[in-house]
Amino acid sequence: MNDIKWVYAFGRTHTDGDRSLKTLLGGKGANLAEMSAIGLPVPPGFTCTTEACARFLDSGGKWPDGLHAQVRAAMRALEAETGRRFGDPDRPLLVSVRSGAALSMPGMMDTVLNLGINDDVAEGLVAETGDDRFVYDSYRRFIDLFGDVVMGVPHEYFEDVMHALKQERGAASDADLTAEDLRELTDRYKAVYRQHTGFMFPEDPWEQLHFSIEAVFKSWNSGRAIKYRQINKIFGLAGTAVNVQAMVFGNLGAGSATGVCFTRNPSTGEPVLYGEFLVNAQGEDVVAGLRTPEPIARLADLMPESHAELLVLTRRLEQHYRNMQDIEFTIQNGTLYLLQTRSGKRTGPAALRIAVDLVREGTVTEAEAVAKLVEPPHLDQLLHPQLDDSDVAPADVLGTGLPASPGAAVGRVVFHSEDAEKARAKGEPVVLVRVETSPEDVGGMSAAEGILTSRGGMTSHAAVVARGWGKPCVAGCGDIVINYRKRQFTNGDRTIKEGEWISIDGTSGRVIAGKKRLTSPSFDATYHTFMGWVDSHRTLQVRANADTPADALKAREYGATGIGLTRTEHMFFGEERISAIRRMILADSPDERKASLDVLLPFQKADFKGIFRAMEGLPVTIRLLDPPLHEFLPHTDEEIIHVAHDLDVPAKTLRTKVMQLHEFNPMLGHRGCRLGITHPEITDMQARAILESAAELFAEGVDVRPEIMVPLVGLETEFRHQAARVRAVAADVERTVGPLPPYLVGTMIEVPRAALVADRIAQEADFFSFGTNDLTQMTFGYSRDDAGKFLVPYLSGKILPVDPFQVLDTEGVGKLVEMATVAGRSANPDLHVGICGEHGGDPHSIAFCYRTGLDYVSCSPFRVPIARLAAAQAELEYGVREPA
Amino acid sequence: MNDIKWVYAFGRTHTDGDRSLKTLLGGKGANLAEMSAIGLPVPPGFTCTTEACARFLDSGGKWPDGLHAQVRAAMRALEAETGRRFGDPDRPLLVSVRSGAALSMPGMMDTVLNLGINDDVAEGLVAETGDDRFVYDSYRRFIDLFGDVVMGVPHEYFEDVMHALKQERGAASDADLTAEDLRELTDRYKAVYRQHTGFMFPEDPWEQLHFSIEAVFKSWNSGRAIKYRQINKIFGLAGTAVNVQAMVFGNLGAGSATGVCFTRNPSTGEPVLYGEFLVNAQGEDVVAGLRTPEPIARLADLMPESHAELLVLTRRLEQHYRNMQDIEFTIQNGTLYLLQTRSGKRTGPAALRIAVDLVREGTVTEAEAVAKLVEPPHLDQLLHPQLDDSDVAPADVLGTGLPASPGAAVGRVVFHSEDAEKARAKGEPVVLVRVETSPEDVGGMSAAEGILTSRGGMTSHAAVVARGWGKPCVAGCGDIVINYRKRQFTNGDRTIKEGEWISIDGTSGRVIAGKKRLTSPSFDATYHTFMGWVDSHRTLQVRANADTPADALKAREYGATGIGLTRTEHMFFGEERISAIRRMILADSPDERKASLDVLLPFQKADFKGIFRAMEGLPVTIRLLDPPLHEFLPHTDEEIIHVAHDLDVPAKTLRTKVMQLHEFNPMLGHRGCRLGITHPEITDMQARAILESAAELFAEGVDVRPEIMVPLVGLETEFRHQAARVRAVAADVERTVGPLPPYLVGTMIEVPRAALVADRIAQEADFFSFGTNDLTQMTFGYSRDDAGKFLVPYLSGKILPVDPFQVLDTEGVGKLVEMATVAGRSANPDLHVGICGEHGGDPHSIAFCYRTGLDYVSCSPFRVPIARLAAAQAELEYGVREPA
Repeated sequence: MNDIKWVYAFGRTHTDGDRSLKTLLGGKGANLAEMSAIGLPVPPGFTCTTEACARFLDSGGKWPDGLHAQVRAAMRALEAETGRRFGDPDRPLLVSVRSGAALSMPGMMDTVLNLGINDDVAEGLVAETGDDRFVYDSYRRFIDLFGDVVMGVPHEYFEDVMHALKQERGAASDADLTAEDLRELTDRYKAVYRQHTGFMFPEDPWEQLHFSIEAVFKSWNSGRAIKYRQINKIFGLAGTAVNVQAMVFGNLGAGSATGVCFTRNPSTGEPVLYGEFLVNAQGEDVVAGLRTPEPIARLADLMPESHAELLVLTRRLEQHYRNMQDIEFTIQNGTLYLLQTRSGKRTGPAALRIAVDLVREGTVTEAEAVAKLVEPPHLDQLLHPQLDDSDVAPADVLGTGLPASPGAAVGRVVFHSEDAEKARAKGEPVVLVRVETSPEDVGGMSAAEGILTSRGGMTSHAAVVARGWGKPCVAGCGDIVINYRKRQFTNGDRTIKEGEWISIDGTSGRVIAGKKRLTSPSFDATYHTFMGWVDSHRTLQVRANADTPADALKAREYGATGIGLTRTEHMFFGEERISAIRRMILADSPDERKASLDVLLPFQKADFKGIFRAMEGLPVTIRLLDPPLHEFLPHTDEEIIHVAHDLDVPAKTLRTKVMQLHEFNPMLGHRGCRLGITHPEITDMQARAILESAAELFAEGVDVRPEIMVPLVGLETEFRHQAARVRAVAADVERTVGPLPPYLVGTMIEVPRAALVADRIAQEADFFSFGTNDLTQMTFGYSRDDAGKFLVPYLSGKILPVDPFQVLDTEGVGKLVEMATVAGRSANPDLHVGICGEHGGDPHSIAFCYRTGLDYVSCSPFRVPIARLAAAQAELEYGVREPA
Repeated sequence: MNDIKWVYAFGRTHTDGDRSLKTLLGGKGANLAEMSAIGLPVPPGFTCTTEACARFLDSGGKWPDGLHAQVRAAMRALEAETGRRFGDPDRPLLVSVRSGAALSMPGMMDTVLNLGINDDVAEGLVAETGDDRFVYDSYRRFIDLFGDVVMGVPHEYFEDVMHALKQERGAASDADLTAEDLRELTDRYKAVYRQHTGFMFPEDPWEQLHFSIEAVFKSWNSGRAIKYRQINKIFGLAGTAVNVQAMVFGNLGAGSATGVCFTRNPSTGEPVLYGEFLVNAQGEDVVAGLRTPEPIARLADLMPESHAELLVLTRRLEQHYRNMQDIEFTIQNGTLYLLQTRSGKRTGPAALRIAVDLVREGTVTEAEAVAKLVEPPHLDQLLHPQLDDSDVAPADVLGTGLPASPGAAVGRVVFHSEDAEKARAKGEPVVLVRVETSPEDVGGMSAAEGILTSRGGMTSHAAVVARGWGKPCVAGCGDIVINYRKRQFTNGDRTIKEGEWISIDGTSGRVIAGKKRLTSPSFDATYHTFMGWVDSHRTLQVRANADTPADALKAREYGATGIGLTRTEHMFFGEERISAIRRMILADSPDERKASLDVLLPFQKADFKGIFRAMEGLPVTIRLLDPPLHEFLPHTDEEIIHVAHDLDVPAKTLRTKVMQLHEFNPMLGHRGCRLGITHPEITDMQARAILESAAELFAEGVDVRPEIMVPLVGLETEFRHQAARVRAVAADVERTVGPLPPYLVGTMIEVPRAALVADRIAQEADFFSFGTNDLTQMTFGYSRDDAGKFLVPYLSGKILPVDPFQVLDTEGVGKLVEMATVAGRSANPDLHVGICGEHGGDPHSIAFCYRTGLDYVSCSPFRVPIARLAAAQAELEYGVREPA
């Protein structure tokens, strides 16, 4: 039994373990061993293994044979390495004791600091440091921690005593207490300890250590820890390790210091140390901000050796961890110690520069840079203007809503769509402020710099449309109350009137009074270098959802290799078009309907030609009409009278039609291919517009690749019906216009049933595109427009881990996607499969699409670079797929 | 080659085949062979095989070697058996020629009758029959048929000639034409034939036969037949057979007759021949109704030998076909021929009596009787009062709507729910007439004898509720226009005022003016005997959906072995209750909400106790609150003011709440367990009402078996949340009231996602009940309230084969049911699985549930006997399942 090694040392002179021993040493212990093993100057110490803990608990609280002796020996080695002695007032050794299981888990004993202190040691430390305030503050903190976490004396009891003393002394804060006060407090803390434990506070450092190690062992079976392991289904772990580590002090005089720094500038990525330090101070002083730290460059002047060592160290850290690091260090009497290192947070521009620099320096490969060094949100920052936070005072913030579409916008407040359009015509920037938006507002939304709504969620109309356009949007800002009549909104007693300037930050959700400075997005050489690497590491295609030639050009600029979704209905809201659509809806016969549709044909052709030209050589998927017809009709009495007048029909006729078309659940109503089947003239007109455009451009030598998408198919008979109409039109176009380029006819898979009978549909269809917005609505049974009322409590109550409209629900909706892909390909091996819901721009969802074998994802143009990165990262994480 | 047998004879003297040769002889040929083989007096003939057809088509239209000779030989044998000669004016043999593939399929050549007739033969027949009118009518018909179906001369050309002749003769109908006219017509038909074919009409009977057989062969490859086979995916059939059969005539004098009869009375089931005949007549005469036929009993007087033979024959038929038969017969000069036999249609009471009699006579087994002799609609007839059609004149019918809930009802017209309730209180029968119904009308619907709506489909609120109660309903009768203000409805210029009597027939959809006689349902000994056999042949349990003690008692009387669904929300519409619910909705805090719920608790307890007592010893599944809260609030301004006054709150408060709760898609909104999670007080109150009732009855010694069902679960976390609330209440009830009987907590599977993650949910749940109404809505993406606009065209256009809300869609929705059952059982082998959507009462859907391994189906009480029968029939068809 004595042969079992219970204790693993780490330090400069000798290290037993490395990061591979995580099960035995716990996560923290293995990391400390790893850092020591590669020669980093970590304060030395040792780890009692998880096996020791298990043995202790199994035996009902007996220290396993040999553990005691090994701890003693390890402490002796620690004394030797540090040149200090445990319990000796002359250069005393203090240690910290921490738990550390193989997986991070709350509920266990946390940390005891400054262990080894007693009255004699305290006086010795005063002699050594000359700082009795620091020493007694450390002492009283140790009693508090030891009493609380080791002996179970509630922290509040110590607090009460502290509070009482402050009152006696008339001290406003802890800092007002003198060294003498802290000595007094130490005594009083000991009294509290005695009163509640029945024992004297242990002056013997070995006793302190013994109890602390035992307390860590026992905390493995605390109620909270057991519960945590149950809930998170953590089984098979033996116990927790115990890490005992020498305390180091940066406040032992002019040769001591403490600081934090990044190995590169986290704001710009520039390859210089970036950080700050304080001489003769401890970590808390840096954090507390009572003294002003010096920039790290000053260390070269004040402690040139330590600075040189730090430079060497950062190089070694980056090479070992293959990433920019954020470190905490302490210099104790000229000796540099590294207390912590971790990958450093950085801005988007910095992330790109660091990634490219680390590749050029030979530290990481291109693949590593793509896989690890830039995260999708980093690119997001680059793609949108951001608020310059230095220009924003807290008092300017009027409220915070949902960060519905990233980027910042500045403009004058308008409340109506027409006003936004008028302002746009005059070149005046405006922010459109609405309670909610509807399809009738798209003109104004398009004209505005940004959109602010007081109601609606991350997937409200405003949010979805804004994200599609890459336009900043703050949605559902309940802090403001809009009064359309008075043309103002209020936030408490603060009123913003139409025409006043506001700034909105769609990245954070803030609504800010006044005209704030913006930083503009930039695509420099670094960006292009990095994105080149990204593209060389991915096979999953990235298309964009774009409804206009301008959007298509933007998508192409952002690297889209096709259009995955063109929604034709957005094209119908133009002034001349909406009248034709309304006449079509009011038509009494198919012939009359056809006459109105003929008016629309040239408009649609012009739209499609523009998009085809913009995407020459790349596929363009166009969806046939999807929304229910009532979306094109007015709803209020006033609007009905107005529109009826325009159309020259009796208001009663229009009102009757509006009532006839009313639906209880429009989401599940008469729309998509259901419309195309009951009103085949619509399908015919749209197919004709697409195919005539294609044939005419083809004749001009333009490489056009149309893909016609039938929406909302749930039955193979529906698809067959619509595909037959399209092919009949195609035959006619070939006869009347001329040869057609190759074209595809496929369908959106957005109704659960379609996924369940995908094999049958695939026999007829050339492609599937998963419409995961609607598929999520129907699979969950959530109306996106109504779900806010329970989604918010669901997310806060952990009923749902994430919003399924933002991150694809792989278990449920994803299972349908997977089933349909497999069944569809088995029936039609040439089937092309993609996704065009909003999930197509979400990195987690893109990884799922990659694993599931999809050919492409399609997202808003502004998400294309992010999707390209996420696709490459998925590929690097999961490996290259078999060709589907 | 000459050895191949192309021709199979059938007849009294010699029959080559039987019904096993369906592939070779086609369905019709195999049947004729079978009937002949068992000694039935079928007019003799022969069948050219499907192989002969295939060979003919493969060779590009050459008769295979030997076919010609075999046809000749078969005709000679036919002459010998009939004692007549083909083409001989003296006792000529006439034949029919018909196609007949292995599967029934339209698009092929149908029938040529009277083949073998020419000018000489016609005169011979006149001499034999003395009926020149009959002979020349037959002749001209033959020319028409031969010209049309064999030679492709359009039937219309012959019609035109007929029409012209009638005009010349001033004849109003065909019957006004004389024999001489028909001779003239025969000549003119021949001229038409010659004009359009370029050939003389073939006088040679052999030539007629040759062309007819060839025409049948060729019709296998007609466009329509090919298309039909493609659409119905019929592959692997060689071709069609050709049946040539001797014509027999019942009009050759006093020793000849023709008739139709059932082997038993199809109206009552009484075991006596039932039918009629005409002496010296042909089949058309019976159908045409120009002469009054004699009852079949008279045949015993007129032709005792034939009558005796018929009696022997019917016995043999029933024994062979194991069912009551409907036959057509002809007596030709004293020889009885059977032209057709098929299972006879019968009424519900007859079906039961015949089934029981056939078992008692030893003709069929009990299992056969259950499997084949009674169909679910037969039971439906027994279970509802029916209109006595003899009391209904066509002029009484005001219109026809959808047959939404079977049975007939008679009452005075009322238009408002309160009026129905008042009438009920006075004992006056009324029919509630509404444009549509809503949950607020349930009181009046319950009070009325029947319900008539002018709008809505088979799954509208009125239809669903009425079927649940077994109350007659005609829905969506667009023939009538309701005017609430004038308290009347109109059908064109006919007006029915409030208080007038009407009758509605929910079985046929008719709306009838006046107070009509009804036949009442009856459950006699025969019914009970038969249902006993049904139950002994089934293991699938049948429960009922019942919301009240009265419904539960009815369900038990109809044989339900439990309640599969109690909808608690219907209980909330009572006057005192609705106020409490509304106060709960308006409450500002959980405590205030709880106070309103406390008011409801005793009501709910009383409801549940009544149901538990009614179902003692059987399980009762109670669903927690399902509909969105806005369903309990008023909607029109007028109602809001009224209700606000009742509740003593400002109308503005109520209006605001109504607006807050408004949903765009309530079907996919804040309801079901989503409500239970955001308003856990509701779940607590309902769980308490259920469990306190159970505990109190348990203490009295009542055997109570509660099953608590959480609606609309899509996430296992939802179920876990709600189940935890229920179990916490249970623990409290055990403490405060006393011991609980065993109870289950399970969920409805009605959201597609639930089916996809059923294994996770099953780990927590005791049972699954498929709510296939909502599951169908979400899987298809169809709102039941709105789908009429496209479902009607979908059904008529064959986009959908059947209404998926009536018959479970096994491919899509059924796949989810199957996946969830398999996954649920794999995670929890004790999982109890049933279905409680309306499909639970549909025979096809019940068969699916049986095959899928469900433990029970649950349907409206009035469907329970039907479901029992359908379950037994499924079991007999598919065999006993492995224990799940």
